Formats: sequence, C-alpha cells, structure tokens
Amino acid sequence: MNELTIPLYAHKKMPLYEQIYRYICREIKEGHMRAGEKLPSSRALAIYLQVSRSTVDLAYSQLLSEGYIQSVPCKGYFVCEIESLYDLPMDKARPRIQKQEKENYRYDFALSGIAEEGFPFNTWHRLMKEALLDTEQRMFRQGEPAGEWGFREALADYLRHARGVDCSPEQIIVGAGNDYLLMLLSVILGPGAVAMENPTYPSAWRCFKSLGYDVRTVGMDRAGMSVEELENVRADVAYVMPSHQFPTGVIMPVSRRMQLLGWAARGEDRYIIEDDYDSEFRYKGKPIPALQGSDGGGRVIYLGTFSKSIAPSIRISYMALPHRLLDAYAKRGACFATTVSRVDQRVMERFLREGYFERHLNRMRGIYKSKHDVLVNSLRQNHIPCRIFGEHAGVHLMLRLEKGMEEKEAVRRAAEAGIKVYGLSEFIRPDSRTECEPALLLGYAGMDCGEIERAVELLARVWT
Amino acid sequence: MNELTIPLYAHKKMPLYEQIYRYICREIKEGHMRAGEKLPSSRALAIYLQVSRSTVDLAYSQLLSEGYIQSVPCKGYFVCEIESLYDLPMDKARPRIQKQEKENYRYDFALSGIAEEGFPFNTWHRLMKEALLDTEQRMFRQGEPAGEWGFREALADYLRHARGVDCSPEQIIVGAGNDYLLMLLSVILGPGAVAMENPTYPSAWRCFKSLGYDVRTVGMDRAGMSVEELENVRADVAYVMPSHQFPTGVIMPVSRRMQLLGWAARGEDRYIIEDDYDSEFRYKGKPIPALQGSDGGGRVIYLGTFSKSIAPSIRISYMALPHRLLDAYAKRGACFATTVSRVDQRVMERFLREGYFERHLNRMRGIYKSKHDVLVNSLRQNHIPCRIFGEHAGVHLMLRLEKGMEEKEAVRRAAEAGIKVYGLSEFIRPDSRTECEPALLLGYAGMDCGEIERAVELLARVWT
Repeated sequence: MNELTIPLYAHKKMPLYEQIYRYICREIKEGHMRAGEKLPSSRALAIYLQVSRSTVDLAYSQLLSEGYIQSVPCKGYFVCEIESLYDLPMDKARPRIQKQEKENYRYDFALSGIAEEGFPFNTWHRLMKEALLDTEQRMFRQGEPAGEWGFREALADYLRHARGVDCSPEQIIVGAGNDYLLMLLSVILGPGAVAMENPTYPSAWRCFKSLGYDVRTVGMDRAGMSVEELENVRADVAYVMPSHQFPTGVIMPVSRRMQLLGWAARGEDRYIIEDDYDSEFRYKGKPIPALQGSDGGGRVIYLGTFSKSIAPSIRISYMALPHRLLDAYAKRGACFATTVSRVDQRVMERFLREGYFERHLNRMRGIYKSKHDVLVNSLRQNHIPCRIFGEHAGVHLMLRLEKGMEEKEAVRRAAEAGIKVYGLSEFIRPDSRTECEPALLLGYAGMDCGEIERAVELLARVWT
Repeated sequence: MNELTIPLYAHKKMPLYEQIYRYICREIKEGHMRAGEKLPSSRALAIYLQVSRSTVDLAYSQLLSEGYIQSVPCKGYFVCEIESLYDLPMDKARPRIQKQEKENYRYDFALSGIAEEGFPFNTWHRLMKEALLDTEQRMFRQGEPAGEWGFREALADYLRHARGVDCSPEQIIVGAGNDYLLMLLSVILGPGAVAMENPTYPSAWRCFKSLGYDVRTVGMDRAGMSVEELENVRADVAYVMPSHQFPTGVIMPVSRRMQLLGWAARGEDRYIIEDDYDSEFRYKGKPIPALQGSDGGGRVIYLGTFSKSIAPSIRISYMALPHRLLDAYAKRGACFATTVSRVDQRVMERFLREGYFERHLNRMRGIYKSKHDVLVNSLRQNHIPCRIFGEHAGVHLMLRLEKGMEEKEAVRRAAEAGIKVYGLSEFIRPDSRTECEPALLLGYAGMDCGEIERAVELLARVWT
C-alpha cells in the first residue's frame, strides 16, 4: 500500500499528526487494516497528503509507541497483530440515580452538626497562607507516613495536658479521619472479633463490618459497657467511648474503667479502642480524663479527631498506639503514605502550639453551653415530660419521654411538625442480646438558640 | 471523716476546685481513702478549707462524674470500689531513635522527586482562599464518601479528554493517596492473589503484602507483563502500569493490552489495576492512552494521582471503578468517610475546570523535557557507555552500562563521588521466577539542569 487517503482538516484544533494517528488507529482497530499489512513509507505518505515529513513521522512514532505498528529495519512499517476488542464481553453501565432525598425539615436536631459560625476562618486562612509560603519546610514533599514529627509533638503535648493521655510523639499516627484510622488499625491488628457497646456509633460499626471483623455487641448499664458480658463474647478488641458515650452520653466511672483494663490485661492480644470523639466539650467542671491515661499496661489505642472540635471537613484525626503495637505498625502500617497533606498538618500544628486551639475551644464551649442550656431550659419550660441523659457535655442530649409515647410515634409526630429528631433504635444493633429502652436524640450544635426554642415549642405541642 | 487537710495554693494557676479534686483523686487511687469511706459534706469541707461551698461542690461533682465517689441520698458522699491500677502489668516503653540516617550526597537522582519550583503557588493560594470563603458550598460539612460530585465530574471530563478514560462521575472515588485507595480497594475486592510485574513499584508491593494479599510476581518482556506467566500464577488481580512502567519505562503495546484484557475476561472476578502514575509527562507526540479506555468488559480499575503532576504533599488521588464494582463499593466501601477535605477538593476542581491544570502540565512538561534532554545529552557527550530505556516520558531513565560494570559496583562508585543513583535490583522481588538484567535508575525531576550536567560529568569519571 502506498496511499492512504486520510481526510485532514487544517482548521481543526487537533494537530495534523494527531489526525493521521487517529485515522490509522481506527482503521487497525476496526479491522480495515490487517496484521502484517505494510504502511506507506513516511516520505511517500507525506508527499501524498501534502504535509511535512515530520508530521507523518510523529504520527508513526505515536503508533509505534502504542504498539499499533512495528518497524522492520530496511523494510518499513507493518500493522501489528492485535486481539480483537470486540471478542470481549461488555460491562453494562447500570444507570444510577444520585440520592436526592433531602427531606424538608424546618428544624433538624442533627447529631453530626457543628456550629459553623465558630470556624476560625481568619486564623486558619493566615496559617494556611504562611504554610504554603514556608518553603523551608519543603511543604511539597510527601513527609512521614505517621505524620510530621513536629505536629505529633504538638499533639502529644496537647493530649497530655488537656486529656491526661500519656504518650510520646512516636506513638502518634495522624490520619484523614477516624474511618481511615480504623482501616489502618485493621491492617496493624489483623482480623478478629470487636466488641462494641449497644447502642453505639453506627459509622464505626459499619466500618468494622466492612473490614471483615466479627462485630459483637455488648450491653451497657449506667456505667457503660458490661465487662461481664464482654468476657463472654470472646472479643479481641473492645471499642468504647468512656468520656461521653455516643449516643447515650454515659460517662464510664473509674471502677468500670479499671475492670475494662483488667479484661484487656487478662488476654495476650486484647486491646481497647478509646474513641474520644467529643470530650473537649464539657460545660461543668473540667473534662473527664481519657481512659488511656490510666492504662499502664499498654492496651489502650486512643483515637481523637478535630472533626467535632473544628470541622468535619478538616479531615485530621490521630491515634496514640501503645508501645507494644509500634513494631506491628512499623512492619505493616508504615508502608502506607500519610493521608493528611503537610500543609494541613503544619496549620494544625501551629493552631495547637500558638494557643489558637485552646482559645477556639473556649469560644466553642461558650457557644455550645448556651445552646445546651437553651435546649434544657426549653424542655423544662415547655413542660415536656422527659428525663434527660448525657447533659453538660458533648453536643447532643438523650431524652426519654415519660408518659409512654413510643419512640417511633414521637419521631413521626415531630416530623409532621417539621422537626427532625433521631430515635435511639437507629443506633441499636439488631443482633444484640440486651434490650435498650427506646429514647430520642437531639443534637443542638448546628442550630441557633432561637431555632432551638421554636423547635422545642413545636415539640411540646405534639409530644404532650 | 469530717476533715480533709488539703493544701491549697491561691497563687497557683490551677483553680481551687481542681486542687481539691486532684488531691482526693490521688488519695483514692493510692488507697489512702478506701472504698465505702464517707467524705465530709461539702458544707463542712468548705468551712474547714475556708473556701466557698460552690468550690467544693464543683470538685465533688467532678469526682462524681468520673466515678471516684458516689452520692447516697440523705447520707452523703462515699468512696467507690475501684480495681487497683497497680495490679495490672506494665507496658514497657521501648526507647526509639528517630531515623536520622540522611546520607550526604551532593547530587541525588531521586525517583520520587518533583520540580518544586513548578508548584503553582499563586493560583493555588488564591483558589484556597476562595474555597475557604465559599460559605455557600458549606465547606465545613463532611461531604460525600466518594468525593464531591462536582470534583468527580471535573475528573471524569479531564480523564476522558486527556487520558482516553471512559467513565462517569459515579465511577470515581477520590482518596488521599494511592496507598489509601489500595487499602479501600482491598475492602471492596476482598482477599485474593495479586500479580505484579517484576520489577515493580515497591511501595505498592509492600501495601498489598500488608493488606494480606498473596503477591505473585510475573516476569516482563519488552511489551510488559507476560500474560502467559500471568495465566500460570492464578492471580485474581493484575497490577500494571501500561503507559510507562515503573521502573523500566516499558510502554505496553496494544496487542499485549488486548491479551491482558482477554485474561481478565476469562475469569469471573478478575480485575486489572492500571496505575497511571506519571502518564501526563510525555515529551514526544501525545500521551499514551490509558488501558481503561480499551476495556469494554469492565475489568480495569484505573488509578491516578496528582502527586507526580502537582506535588506529593497534595494528597489527592482517585480511581475509576468499573460499573460491576459499584455495588460492592456501595456495600463495603461507602461507609468510609472521604479522606480529602472539601476545601482541597474544591481547589482541585477549579484547578481542573478553569484550565489551570492544563497550563500547569504544559509548563511542567517543558521543565521536565529540558531536564530529560540535558540528562540524555550529557550521558552521550560524556561518552558513558550505556543503553537508555524509558526515555521521552516520565521523570526518570533506566540505564544499562555496556562495558559490564556490575550494578552494585556502579552504585557504589557513584556514591563515592557523592552521587546517589538507584539500582534496579532494589525493585526486583526476590521470590520472582524470572531474572531481570541489572540496571541503574536516574530520576531527574528534583535536580536542576546544571546539577544534572555536573553529576553526569562526575559519573563519567567513575563509570568509564
């Protein structure tokens, strides 16, 4: 073959060489040019198409790189043998509808909300700018898998004085969110059985399930997870929230903490995951110290996050591993590159070290305490017959209606009045042995005080 | 007991209530106050210590919250029963020395380098500021597990026109780095055997090993992974880099691509992971299209990253799943919250949509092409007797010295001259059946042209 009539369009945005390349490509794929067939020499084709020889050379070299044609020395270019595309079965695209089921509530006592008005925009932006400019820090290199050393030092200092967590920077692993850290933990710990409180945090429950863990739910009493039941379920790991259990708000007392540490100490490879998700927010006295601080035996894996205290979009969480797990981390976990950018780590490091975080927390405590007090007072003033649990801490309350209204009924009536409240039964695992009394959960972080008051007035009408 | 002599210091930074709380706490922990022992009433203690009653109340309420004491109605406060801390075994802190083995090379042909001077600082900073200000976008909420829809649309558009990847936004999952995406994939795909090229990308090899995969290395010829060998190793997943294999630089021709797709189509659950890590950089003709674009059968999982094209510290990668895996993602993967902040996603979305990325790539291609050309020319001009592989693409070259100098010897001599080059044998898995000819790898992204020239002059002295 010496001629290839390739339609070329000079006005097209596509370069001429690419038009030639695409044409020949298609001819080969569609079987019009067959394996072994000789192509015209680049000189001949250039003359024929009235283009420069280098244009054809470029097209041929692209075809050569991608393996459509091969070059035989002193003979020219030939079409390669290619297994047909059309013999392979097809992947059917299943059309999917994006979820657009945003319900229209006037008021939403969302449990995942935060007070967006409290985001420290000016400071954050300035620190971000300075971190981007900070070339000395080599911000564009990847950095340590466990997180930057300076940031981990700042975290260890903060955790020591604010949460009573006893750890050194080398024990700290930084990651983009708690779910990621649970994923990484599953790599470090390997498979096994995880005991969770019932009710518990559903997102962690789903993560453990997805990671292949055998998840066993353990009943709670007023002191938290039942250690007797825990003994019976033969778990390797107990996942607890001792400072303010989600969703019940239970604070685990010292005696139960010691029992739990005792449980862990009785097995060779038993661990406790302490998820300390919102303990920064306590409105009476000082924060409840972390369980990790009482753990002399190296069995507590401490998990903390800035999602609640700053914003969920920040994507910075951290965990403190006991010393005994550092070798396993080095062996199996340290090959995974960090999931938090150095810029964000640097911003958060300075936010901690330069006192901004402490000031931010004080401000947020003030904001949340006001909202908390307005909610509690509104419930009282509107004579809603209920008992309140988990107050003076966190950003949600649990209520038990006293005049026997069913949980579902209460949620339904609230919805009819345009208010979203959450039933505790959503957080109860169906496979649990223990029964939980139904209740209602009201998160107040994302609402303003006026909204809380108006919503509670409406609730009073439908709940009494 | 009616009296507790607690030393109080008014000048201390610690509030008085906390001094009382801490003192009693310690007394209980150390066994000086025993279970069942009655505490003085708050009124009596306040008078005794000459502090206000509310100070003592606050201390007692903290002790009550943490479970050190309990309140018996009409009787007062009593010390709780607490399992002793001191019965539990101790976790020994193993002192660790931070790695400080930074070797002193004058020139480092690092393979992971990027041209830091090319970071689009001004644009990035402006987009970042605007994203932070963009309250309409509700930047502080957590967002979609798979990534923001708008960003995934922008990615799908970019991948279609720049890489020939055929996917819709719903197939795209955004994540903080390739290692994270491999972790997530292991949750989606479940356990099995992964075939990797030999030599291959060691970081991915270690990740698969840590994730519990049975990793089988498959030999390569000049067209990439041997499909015959692949058939024999009984893998479920083949991990390949068809556009520019790391570290050999091999481009997989169309015929081998079709064979590989054929292999995948012959098994019920066979998949190909296409790691397209540096295909944006090609200095001759146009980029080699992604294998995914030829995959009609839904067997290719396409993996891409901005680590090479922008900076590793950016921590934004993405994958395009075939339709047939979307249900598995929804079931097992979607419970993991996104690992990339919405601010970063928004910045990257605008960077793609508003043409900045294309301009950035053009600029970087120019920078890297210059460095590439300087390196190739210097090798020639200094008469280093070698064959060059993988040129005209990516940011590293592979060399085979022709006069029979051993790889180790060449690396050692370079090191003596103050130059770090990398031996191919570091990338060869010891468990492989096939032999690889030794070679040297030289990354040029992080060096400037003058450094490259001077380093090659030095290499010529020790290698010839």
